[in-house]
Amino acid sequence: MEEIRRIKRELAYKGRIINIYKDYMALPNGHTAVWDFVEHKGAAAVVAVTKEGKLLMVRQYRNALERDTLEIPAGALNYVGEPKEQCAARELEEETGFRAGKLTWLMNINTTVAFCNEFIGVYLAEDLIPSRQHLDDDEFLNVEEHELDELLAMVFDGRITDSKTAAALMAYKLKRG
Amino acid sequence: MEEIRRIKRELAYKGRIINIYKDYMALPNGHTAVWDFVEHKGAAAVVAVTKEGKLLMVRQYRNALERDTLEIPAGALNYVGEPKEQCAARELEEETGFRAGKLTWLMNINTTVAFCNEFIGVYLAEDLIPSRQHLDDDEFLNVEEHELDELLAMVFDGRITDSKTAAALMAYKLKRG
Repeated sequence: MEEIRRIKRELAYKGRIINIYKDYMALPNGHTAVWDFVEHKGAAAVVAVTKEGKLLMVRQYRNALERDTLEIPAGALNYVGEPKEQCAARELEEETGFRAGKLTWLMNINTTVAFCNEFIGVYLAEDLIPSRQHLDDDEFLNVEEHELDELLAMVFDGRITDSKTAAALMAYKLKRG
Repeated sequence: MEEIRRIKRELAYKGRIINIYKDYMALPNGHTAVWDFVEHKGAAAVVAVTKEGKLLMVRQYRNALERDTLEIPAGALNYVGEPKEQCAARELEEETGFRAGKLTWLMNINTTVAFCNEFIGVYLAEDLIPSRQHLDDDEFLNVEEHELDELLAMVFDGRITDSKTAAALMAYKLKRG
């Protein structure tokens, strides 16, 4: 493949959970193009399976979609480079009130490669141990339990659209289900 | 669930393929929070299956990841509200040089719901008809053919991380494979 090379990266805007940059790119045809780059520090997400084989899901309001979504538990890293497994364990406990007796890697996801480096490590949590939910100050969500096949039906008919959730549920089905 | 309400949306930055806003949110605890919102006009993507049962994939450089990725063919809508199926047909032909004799809906994806409204309609293209590749001026990519099971192995071991690609390949496997 012909070489594409970045000449310069310029900060354009600092947000709350993302920063926006202009990437000045040298293209194989001699053009210089300015491409968007959205910087995210990374995240972890968890497929959490109860003793009864049900999955713990969270329902929350998403301002970007102007509606509630049903998602697997997930959250951003506390700092760049935080071990994803540590983040997964923390977010599971904070959001659902369960600790994972067993936590294994399921898959890695880049949510939207055309303009963002957001990377999510997805883990499978088993042998759940009741603990205590402790949400962030400005975090509001409800926890629900669902059957895997019910959730997959929601992926296939468009009721669940969140990419990490759709991918993680299907990966669990294909790898373990 | 307690009500979260947007008070104001303020444009913070206009990019090439995205715009960034500050959403001022009234939270159930009485706080006002400023949340990021990244506006994207939407996209379509295609699982394209050849007569031999192989899948057409594109390999291209992604500045956000600073590396090449292997993805299903995809592209942004030409305008907000463009029918996703029309976009899918166009992007398939432009990127791979094949038209779809048959194009059916496979799934819908929101790539990253925590801050972005990007929505991708994913379609299954069959009965491919040779046509002509015609890339955009500043678009550089290579087309490859792969077996589904080879691609799924790449999803499961972390070589393919693109969320739309991972989700689409697994949905095709579970729905049709």
